[in-house]
Amino acid sequence: MRSVFFLSNRTAITAETLGHSLLAQFGGLDFREFTIPYVDNRDLAISVAEQINRAAAQDGIRPIVFSTLADPELRSLVANSQGLLLDLFHAFLNILEAELQAKPLERGEYSHRLVDVHKYESRMDAINFALLHDDGAYTRQYDQSDLILIGVSRSGKTPTCLYLALQFGIRAANYPITEEDLGGNVLPRALRPYVNKLYGLTTSPERLQSIRTARRPGSRYASPEQCRYEVQAVEALYRAKGIRFLNTTTRSVEEIATRIVQETGLQRHSY
Amino acid sequence: MRSVFFLSNRTAITAETLGHSLLAQFGGLDFREFTIPYVDNRDLAISVAEQINRAAAQDGIRPIVFSTLADPELRSLVANSQGLLLDLFHAFLNILEAELQAKPLERGEYSHRLVDVHKYESRMDAINFALLHDDGAYTRQYDQSDLILIGVSRSGKTPTCLYLALQFGIRAANYPITEEDLGGNVLPRALRPYVNKLYGLTTSPERLQSIRTARRPGSRYASPEQCRYEVQAVEALYRAKGIRFLNTTTRSVEEIATRIVQETGLQRHSY
Repeated sequence: MRSVFFLSNRTAITAETLGHSLLAQFGGLDFREFTIPYVDNRDLAISVAEQINRAAAQDGIRPIVFSTLADPELRSLVANSQGLLLDLFHAFLNILEAELQAKPLERGEYSHRLVDVHKYESRMDAINFALLHDDGAYTRQYDQSDLILIGVSRSGKTPTCLYLALQFGIRAANYPITEEDLGGNVLPRALRPYVNKLYGLTTSPERLQSIRTARRPGSRYASPEQCRYEVQAVEALYRAKGIRFLNTTTRSVEEIATRIVQETGLQRHSY
Repeated sequence: MRSVFFLSNRTAITAETLGHSLLAQFGGLDFREFTIPYVDNRDLAISVAEQINRAAAQDGIRPIVFSTLADPELRSLVANSQGLLLDLFHAFLNILEAELQAKPLERGEYSHRLVDVHKYESRMDAINFALLHDDGAYTRQYDQSDLILIGVSRSGKTPTCLYLALQFGIRAANYPITEEDLGGNVLPRALRPYVNKLYGLTTSPERLQSIRTARRPGSRYASPEQCRYEVQAVEALYRAKGIRFLNTTTRSVEEIATRIVQETGLQRHSY
């Protein structure tokens, strides 16, 4: 099996995400994956190059190396290994340098910049808001929310709210639509003043059943009939009240959160 | 001011992250930023190209366009605009195609693949674990945790645990070290059986003061003396008990989480 490395002088999350997305274009190929963050000095870069060479010898085929290493010296230590280096950084840095007619900062100038306290606070505030307002636990600050997610149990409300807070700094509450709320196309009382902030999640009955079964196997809650009924009834409620909604069945948390931000026109912060 | 666009047929989070990181190399330059996710059809691509041209006319300088558009036709519609296209995808796709001797999947083949239910469940499980075990609220399942983060109030435990769950699928609890726990270099009783799972966070007294002041201005809790005492005492506790710890002062949540995963050797999942 061929080895794949994801290298960075920071978290390596970008190298990993872009690398996975590129490799996914080739369908069912399998790789042995190694993520190495914080490659930020010569010794580490040399030891990473050695690790790549060992993998090449062991696999009998050269490893693929996705790198966002910013430092040119460290980059070239890795480039001299036997791996195929896909440098996700320098090609673009050179183009930007020409276009902006500016020099990139020297090593160290950017790597130790302080995290902005105000940004940190606004993000923490969004996270605390999501935690306090999870699952309808507390509804009295809904006027201060950017968004209130609604949906039946296990339709993905909690992770979406947390992701909206962590990734985009959005204050999102969530409120569960239970069986008692369904059937009459009437919104729970706590939600009525905030129709404009509501956003619905839905999913396929099959997927809901599979997720609920993992949680409570054999229960009425996880039965095909119950899942089918709740999905159909909650979608009817959304339509009756003109509430925008999204089917989350084939979507990751990242995709659900991004779609919601796009459709609602909320301000997307980046951290 | 020059405009910058981040385009993708998916969430655009990768285009945004890599683009920001590249632009940050040029220090204090200011840009007007536009993130446009889900550019997944001709009409949208044409309207994005028009928006880029309008920005070019308005700014009097060509916009910079970071793109992870996978579809070649949509990509070329954008490439024909007046923006400078930095294509974070196709250059690498061609190299990989040659190296892997495989053809990339056709449009549609990959875009609608189902989200893996098992992966979704393990991620949800980690999120639920973090929520249930936030701030020392519940300590009886510590044996099932991958990690227990400890630290004084406002040292960044909660967002780190949530990020560890969302990004890496790691089951992390957190437990606050309060004033009563400090001074004697003795661990709170609930933590004693799990010394090997403990990881400490610390921060500078100045930063702690600034974050606590934003929360409770003028309180003893936010005073310079109290912050200095708690930081010094909790670090003494970590040292006395041989607990690994990290100073979070200049680090983002992403960086803190990545460092912890790296230092503890925990398995990093990717979603």
